Amino acid sequence: MEIKLAKHYGFCYGVERAIDIAEQHPNSATFGPLIHNKDEIARLKQDFNVGLVENFEEAKEYDTIIIRTHGITKDAYKKLKADGKKIINATCPFVTKPQQIVSQMSKEDYTIVIFGDKNHPEIKGVASFGEEGKVFTVLSEEELIGLPLGPKVATVAQTTRKPHEFKKIVAALSVRVAELRVFNTICNATFENQDATRELASECDITIVVGGKNSSNNKQLYSIAKSICPDSYHIENESEVKKEWFENKECCGVSAGASTPDWIIQKVVKRIKELVG
Amino acid sequence: MEIKLAKHYGFCYGVERAIDIAEQHPNSATFGPLIHNKDEIARLKQDFNVGLVENFEEAKEYDTIIIRTHGITKDAYKKLKADGKKIINATCPFVTKPQQIVSQMSKEDYTIVIFGDKNHPEIKGVASFGEEGKVFTVLSEEELIGLPLGPKVATVAQTTRKPHEFKKIVAALSVRVAELRVFNTICNATFENQDATRELASECDITIVVGGKNSSNNKQLYSIAKSICPDSYHIENESEVKKEWFENKECCGVSAGASTPDWIIQKVVKRIKELVG
Repeated sequence: MEIKLAKHYGFCYGVERAIDIAEQHPNSATFGPLIHNKDEIARLKQDFNVGLVENFEEAKEYDTIIIRTHGITKDAYKKLKADGKKIINATCPFVTKPQQIVSQMSKEDYTIVIFGDKNHPEIKGVASFGEEGKVFTVLSEEELIGLPLGPKVATVAQTTRKPHEFKKIVAALSVRVAELRVFNTICNATFENQDATRELASECDITIVVGGKNSSNNKQLYSIAKSICPDSYHIENESEVKKEWFENKECCGVSAGASTPDWIIQKVVKRIKELVG
Repeated sequence: MEIKLAKHYGFCYGVERAIDIAEQHPNSATFGPLIHNKDEIARLKQDFNVGLVENFEEAKEYDTIIIRTHGITKDAYKKLKADGKKIINATCPFVTKPQQIVSQMSKEDYTIVIFGDKNHPEIKGVASFGEEGKVFTVLSEEELIGLPLGPKVATVAQTTRKPHEFKKIVAALSVRVAELRVFNTICNATFENQDATRELASECDITIVVGGKNSSNNKQLYSIAKSICPDSYHIENESEVKKEWFENKECCGVSAGASTPDWIIQKVVKRIKELVG
């Protein structure tokens, strides 16, 4: 049986950079999970003694705090500073950008419309850079109805959103306000992995998506794979691979989301080889 | 037979303003037709000796030149200035606005996309305020394909375009460039007249649209009326009204585009009353 890797898979630029930063700061802690992959977080703890804190209380035990790839709110940043922490910023540059845009546009008196999920840490962070009461987060055109937008609006998108959905928000805003500033802050990395998984699933009779099950990124890859190749599986690591999956199969595709480290993917590939003999 | 006027009809703000300006400057000439209505232009000539010149050669005979409601190009303006003319600017403020936006955005290094007809005098004027080679005028999404837009784009619309078509251009641009500035420069006056004509045509069994036949504004009103009320007519003035149109009719609707003066509409109404007795 052939084992085939997707043309694009695994770590995006921002995740790779965040892990490099974490490895360079042993004995620190990340404020919230650095990335959506608990195996990688365990490795950073074991090999570099990089801990994980979930709140300011827990942060008290550390001198150095690393900001996660998704970023944190402006207030959380200020509080950590006030608590005397040394702050290492591992926020993905593609997330820092909408934060800066929201900050600047708010100063220039634009109302902010964020296309994204208001409960996602990235968006909580981005929204916090605007002026309270003048930032609105929406996922659909319908949610724009009745919002007190004013004549000048600036809009950004969550980095992982789909461009064709962002277009709908932009179109609706464009004829509603006198001036609209559109910053396309969607990151292509997600789509490169998605396109490659689509291609891979069409070429194989079994497809395995590797990565954290709490990552929406991996869930999307799995849903794409499954829709094309019915024998698709979403696993977190090699321990979940089952021998019976490969009976009578000719080609096994392997893909992984932006938060899945290469070493886990390699272990999965090794395990498949062992099982198919 | 009842004669009913549309709830909105005739002069828009910009046209009314331009005519006021012309009346205040007798013995001058407009550079190009002040508005798209030859009867009104004839009246201005007769009552106020406001002439009409089509080029710089013809302009030589006048000390004072009035800029038409649609505006002129930046170069034409400079040339008239250089020729020592006193310039009276009757450009509609809703047209001046996109001119200023294009000028400012060009200075800030944005590529300009104008949604409009490149052969329309308004758009020739607006486009001239941008930097040569960095202004593109399109009427459809397809025309955007292959344009060297660069990362920063600003877009404006011809004042008389339809918002739902502008939205399509904006949506396409929004995910193609890093930053897009959208200025909704569409003027509502056209749509107020259109909506009112739609309502009128549905209430009457004959509809008459009054106004210059070279005005796209009037053509649109006529097309709307005709689609609802089959016995619709487009006339320039009262001389075209025919008695037989009103046989067995109960209600005659009268509407007019943004460049049709009230005195022509009143003459049409008077003529209808004479004919139906």
